[in-house]
Amino acid sequence: MTTGVRRRMGVEERRQQLIGVALELFSQRSPDDVSIDEIASAAGISRPLVYHYFPGKLSLYEAALRRAAQDLAGRFAEPQEGPLGDRLRRVMRRFFDFVDEHGPGFSALMRGGPAVGSSATNALIDSVRQAAYEQILAHLDIEDPPARLELVVRSWISLAESTALIWLDGRRIPRAELEAQLVHDFAALAAVSAAYDEEMGALLRRMLKHEPADGPFADLVGRLIALAS
Amino acid sequence: MTTGVRRRMGVEERRQQLIGVALELFSQRSPDDVSIDEIASAAGISRPLVYHYFPGKLSLYEAALRRAAQDLAGRFAEPQEGPLGDRLRRVMRRFFDFVDEHGPGFSALMRGGPAVGSSATNALIDSVRQAAYEQILAHLDIEDPPARLELVVRSWISLAESTALIWLDGRRIPRAELEAQLVHDFAALAAVSAAYDEEMGALLRRMLKHEPADGPFADLVGRLIALAS
Repeated sequence: MTTGVRRRMGVEERRQQLIGVALELFSQRSPDDVSIDEIASAAGISRPLVYHYFPGKLSLYEAALRRAAQDLAGRFAEPQEGPLGDRLRRVMRRFFDFVDEHGPGFSALMRGGPAVGSSATNALIDSVRQAAYEQILAHLDIEDPPARLELVVRSWISLAESTALIWLDGRRIPRAELEAQLVHDFAALAAVSAAYDEEMGALLRRMLKHEPADGPFADLVGRLIALAS
Repeated sequence: MTTGVRRRMGVEERRQQLIGVALELFSQRSPDDVSIDEIASAAGISRPLVYHYFPGKLSLYEAALRRAAQDLAGRFAEPQEGPLGDRLRRVMRRFFDFVDEHGPGFSALMRGGPAVGSSATNALIDSVRQAAYEQILAHLDIEDPPARLELVVRSWISLAESTALIWLDGRRIPRAELEAQLVHDFAALAAVSAAYDEEMGALLRRMLKHEPADGPFADLVGRLIALAS
C-alpha cells in the first residue's frame, strides 16, 4: 500500500479477490480445515461481508475450483511442434507444477473433498479430463479415435492423476523422475494395446515416426531391451 | 413359495434381505434412480417397514456397498501357485465379472454417486483398493515394498478401475481383451519403472523368473519386439 486510503472494490473485483485468497488457503491446507473466518481475515474483510459475495463455503469452494480448473486446463496447451515425447514431457512438468502448488487442495478434491458428490464439482473435474483428452488427440492429429486409442488416452490420464496423488503422499520419489515416467507409461500403454491390435499398431508407428534417436522413447526402448536380455 | 404361509423374518435376516434386494436394484440402475418405494415393493414389504430397518436410503446404500466391497475383495483371493501372469489373469476375469454384474452401480459409485463424499463410502472404496494392493504384494512375496513398487502397484490399481469404467461406457472392446491387457499393462508399468531404477530392475527379474516361455509376459515381449522392428 503506497497510500493510507483503502480503495473500495467493485463487486466483481471483490469476488475475484476472495476467490484468490480462498484458493491460496485451499492450496496450503485441506479445504475442510479452512474456515470462512480465516478467509475473511486473510482478505481483510468481515465474515458477514464474505457471505454477501458468496452464500456459503461451498459456493466459494466451487468458484475457487473453477479458477484452478481453468488454470490447469491452460497448462495443457502446448505448441504442436517438435517430437511428441518432448511435448508431453513439458506438459507433465507444468502438470506437476500445478500439483505442487495446490498439493493439499488437489489431494482433498481427488480423494473426496468437501464438495465431491456435488454435480458442479464432478462436472469441473470431468471438464479438465476432457480438455487433457482433446489436447492429446490434437497432438496425435486424430479426430475420430478408435475405441482402443480412446481407452489408452483416457486411462493414461487417470494414471497421471493417481501418480500425482501418490507422489503428494510423502513425496518419496523425485517429481522429475515421475514426469519422465508418465511419458514412458503413455508409450508403454499404447504399445501394449498395439501389440494386440493392428489399427493401434499402425497408429503407434505413425506416432513414433518423428521421434528422435536420442529422445525419451528411443531411450526407453534401449533400456527395455537391455533389461530383457 | 411352496406353502401359502409367509414366514416372519428376524431383524437381522430382514436387514440382509433388504440389502440383497437393494444391491440387486443398484446393480441394474444408477442408485440415484432407485427409490425406497421400489426397494420396498421388490422386498414385498411396506415403505415404512424399510425405514424401520434403515433410517434412510443412504444407510441402505452404504450397507449394500459394504456387502459389494466384501464380495469384490473376496474375488481378489487367489492361491499363490503357478505363474504370476496366470494368477493375475484369473483375478482380472473375476474383477470384470464383478464389474459386469454391478455395472450401473459401479459406474455411479466411481464417478461420484449419491454417497460419494460421505466418509463411510470413501473408506469402503479405499479398503477395497488396499485389499487389492496387499494381495498383489503377497503374490510378489514382498513385505516392505520400495516407494517405486508401491507406486507401480497402486497406480496400476487405479488404471484397472478406469479401464473397467471406460469399458462399461458402451462396452466397445471385448472384456476378455481388456483382462489380458491389464495383465500386460502391469508388466509394462513395472518395466518402465525398472528401466530407470536398479532396485526395480532386480524385483522385475525376480517376478518374471518363473513365467513360462508360452505365458502372457513372454507373448507380450515377443509382440513388442516384432512391433519395434
